Amino acid sequence: MSRVHKIASMPGDGIGIEVTGSAIAVLNACAELCGDFRLDFKELPYGTAYYKETGAYFPPDGLDEVRQFDAVLFGAVGMPDVPDSISLWGLLLAMRGPLQQYANVRPVKCLKNILPAVRTVAPKDIDWVLVRENSEGEYAGQGGRSHRGFDWEVATELAIFTRHGARRIIRYAFEIAQSRPRKLLTVVSKSNAQRYGMVLWDEVAEEVSKEFPDVKWDKMLVDAMTVRMVHKPHTLDTIVGSNLHMDILSDLAAALAASIGIAPSANIDPTRKSPSMFEPVHGSAFDIMGKGVANPFGAVWSAAMMLEFLGEKKAGDMLMESMEKCCEEGKTTEDLGGKMNTKQVTEALIENLKI
Amino acid sequence: MSRVHKIASMPGDGIGIEVTGSAIAVLNACAELCGDFRLDFKELPYGTAYYKETGAYFPPDGLDEVRQFDAVLFGAVGMPDVPDSISLWGLLLAMRGPLQQYANVRPVKCLKNILPAVRTVAPKDIDWVLVRENSEGEYAGQGGRSHRGFDWEVATELAIFTRHGARRIIRYAFEIAQSRPRKLLTVVSKSNAQRYGMVLWDEVAEEVSKEFPDVKWDKMLVDAMTVRMVHKPHTLDTIVGSNLHMDILSDLAAALAASIGIAPSANIDPTRKSPSMFEPVHGSAFDIMGKGVANPFGAVWSAAMMLEFLGEKKAGDMLMESMEKCCEEGKTTEDLGGKMNTKQVTEALIENLKI
Ligand SMILES: CC(C)[C@H](C(=O)O)[C@@H](O)C(=O)O
Ligand SMILES: CC(C)[C@H](C(=O)O)[C@@H](O)C(=O)O
Repeated sequence: MSRVHKIASMPGDGIGIEVTGSAIAVLNACAELCGDFRLDFKELPYGTAYYKETGAYFPPDGLDEVRQFDAVLFGAVGMPDVPDSISLWGLLLAMRGPLQQYANVRPVKCLKNILPAVRTVAPKDIDWVLVRENSEGEYAGQGGRSHRGFDWEVATELAIFTRHGARRIIRYAFEIAQSRPRKLLTVVSKSNAQRYGMVLWDEVAEEVSKEFPDVKWDKMLVDAMTVRMVHKPHTLDTIVGSNLHMDILSDLAAALAASIGIAPSANIDPTRKSPSMFEPVHGSAFDIMGKGVANPFGAVWSAAMMLEFLGEKKAGDMLMESMEKCCEEGKTTEDLGGKMNTKQVTEALIENLKI
Repeated sequence: MSRVHKIASMPGDGIGIEVTGSAIAVLNACAELCGDFRLDFKELPYGTAYYKETGAYFPPDGLDEVRQFDAVLFGAVGMPDVPDSISLWGLLLAMRGPLQQYANVRPVKCLKNILPAVRTVAPKDIDWVLVRENSEGEYAGQGGRSHRGFDWEVATELAIFTRHGARRIIRYAFEIAQSRPRKLLTVVSKSNAQRYGMVLWDEVAEEVSKEFPDVKWDKMLVDAMTVRMVHKPHTLDTIVGSNLHMDILSDLAAALAASIGIAPSANIDPTRKSPSMFEPVHGSAFDIMGKGVANPFGAVWSAAMMLEFLGEKKAGDMLMESMEKCCEEGKTTEDLGGKMNTKQVTEALIENLKI
């Protein structure tokens, strides 16, 4: 009897729809090839079209609905005619925090035949796991505007860092670091300028590090971290930081390794009380949507992470190996130096699946 | 009769002391060569040694003292045995805000013979001016910690964005963009996740842009901006953003153009009510301090900006040309591929000064 995993797919908007379609096709082909598990997809229609029809990006009982699934496969959300602050808080950020998917995990490495961006860097120099706090910090959502529209207007953004929140994500990052061969963790902060939350963050890192005597770790300021990622990538392995800091550093990491089009992410609730959500790092990309040229690798890599999270590691590895093979054969979209469109790459990915 | 400019030098800590000494030597040689102006330096001893002696990084009347000068030449502050949050807020951040040096200007370009970091990028592709809001935002300094040390501790960082503050810096950036050949401005924000201050920032950009119909401008999210800087640097010219966003992006920019060791900055009060302050972007760099190997280019480039700000543009150009000549001749420190120490580079810089 085969294992069944119940997956909510939320393609959302723009190229999210295109790449999620691709990922589902590859996932189904993979499950069929393996034969010992099945993915039971249900598509949830939330996104900008739904918003225009109903006035909400997500129904009032949306969280309960999502909780029925083992995982969520998410595309992207956002359209040019709705302010991003509405669409993102309406859907994506309405799930990450409330579902306590507090760990956003973003592996970054160079796929075969893909040269990293920096001249002095070899492909093997980039092999990172970025761990992003995903439930609080600069994305706590609090703040406001007073004297709106007047010359003396004041707006605030309140970043909230709890000891509980810092501890659980830093501990999770130490665990990841410990599970990797180099056992190396870099904790990012900005405690020279931000004297409260970021100093707490540093203190918690000191405290948690004592539980992991076999992990080497150091601290870096977020600004200096960009320099290190460009010039000394081989000195980095696992990296943990706040919601905003890692938002920025993970885009940079993807650009340095290849293209933002391949970057995957997993929004994980490590307690497994809520389903985790898997999504490419790229957004809905208005500029190329509808053209069928989007790179599906970000979505497929995210799908591979989902499989591993669901206990189907072998199947996840098959997806990764298929992507590597496509890179070797030059069967890629333009951003990776290839000439193929989304459909052709999807076919190649399915063809290259090997059990 | 020659013009006299009164300069407070504040070498501070670590390599700040080494590179400020170098910059002063080059500045004096330049003034002598020009013959029509003089720099009257007074060294102010503020920094960690002063703190250990007096208990304060900056005396209570420090701001009044600094206001007597036409400009401040700053080195760096910070030592391993004092928390950065104390030293930075004690000295550097105790001046930027209170002196209303609201514009932090950071030009970035590739000097002669120095290849940019990214393979696909040509030296001419990087020619940017980064304009950083320098008086509020994420550096407003407000926030706190409750239940300190307990499991339920909460720490906050309050970012404050005023319409006044956003308007003056965005207007200043539009003016810089307008004065440059390409008349191109990119406004950085994070208004999809930060719904109050960053949305205000976007609105102000729209409003101010109407005053500059000849400037082409666009908006970018800070995370996507890192990707654009790596992969499409030639599409950028002048860039403006919040205090933290530009702190991060300016380190990245320096790394992409060459080395953080050459990056200059000017903390400017455009109203000229307070003196402006000129400082290399790098910090006190404990790891190399005292070895005499620090790259003085960041400090010398900052000094060139100071000269221009004081009305001595010709002299400022002389400093820039001397640096270019040193790069051509390979008379540089290790981070730029050379073999010289700080003293040798300083001598070469003086030798290469040409009126
Ligand atoms: C779309 C946006 C809200 C999101 C974020 O800022 O978290 C994205 O940039 C990401 O990195 O997942
Ligand atoms: C030293 C530090 C407080 C400072 C900043 O964050 O502003 C520095 O990184 C800079 O960029 O000038």
